[in-house]
Amino acid sequence: MFELHPTLANDTVEITQLNVCRVLLIRDKTYPWIVLVPEREGLRDLDDLNEPDRIQVMAEIDQASKALKALFTPYKINVAALGNVVEQLHIHVIARFQNDAAWPGPIWGVAPLKDYADTDRDQLVSRLKAELNKIAVL
Amino acid sequence: MFELHPTLANDTVEITQLNVCRVLLIRDKTYPWIVLVPEREGLRDLDDLNEPDRIQVMAEIDQASKALKALFTPYKINVAALGNVVEQLHIHVIARFQNDAAWPGPIWGVAPLKDYADTDRDQLVSRLKAELNKIAVL
Repeated sequence: MFELHPTLANDTVEITQLNVCRVLLIRDKTYPWIVLVPEREGLRDLDDLNEPDRIQVMAEIDQASKALKALFTPYKINVAALGNVVEQLHIHVIARFQNDAAWPGPIWGVAPLKDYADTDRDQLVSRLKAELNKIAVL
Repeated sequence: MFELHPTLANDTVEITQLNVCRVLLIRDKTYPWIVLVPEREGLRDLDDLNEPDRIQVMAEIDQASKALKALFTPYKINVAALGNVVEQLHIHVIARFQNDAAWPGPIWGVAPLKDYADTDRDQLVSRLKAELNKIAVL
């Protein structure tokens, strides 16, 4: 049975569930930062996905990227499946700006997570969920 | 017309061309490190790919990952499309080991590129090319 890794559960709030992935917002106001977790047991690397799931996950990465672009107009989107620390397959989708804390480097390990105020986070989750659903039905 | 970014051209050697991506080996013996560059003009982010190209690029990421696994038996595969410095869309596929120079962090910016000896690089390119072709025909 699929169970979300405790570190991911601790560092995130759920935005929504798409066909394959659970979509999470990282509790870090430093960057608009989504994580997609395919709800499949025992996967570590992207190439562990079977072909239909792989195609769907790529479509969901696309949706998450477009939702971040619609809400934040970032300079770049960073997409990464690393998982050296938390080995459960998860894909980062991050909106990057030329004046953000880690620019132009990758964000991992640069600044400790700074959680949103509760109301800000709730509002962002709602807006992201609405945006993801809008893209999903196109 | 598609033209490879000069930084990518400088830091890599070509392994092969797949349906959408040019497949490059980074001149860095610190990690087995492939870069896929979709041969499409003007793309910056993964979600700039149209749907058929996106599906094919994901299949080619899969091939590159499996080729690295077959040759190196890494502990993890890292896949990332960042492009904050070199903005032409390119996807890193890296074989990671628990005793490599950057473990468990991401590899970017940790150690300067250390090129292979010419014969080692040529041999690795041949082996990767053979492995990619083997996977492609399955």
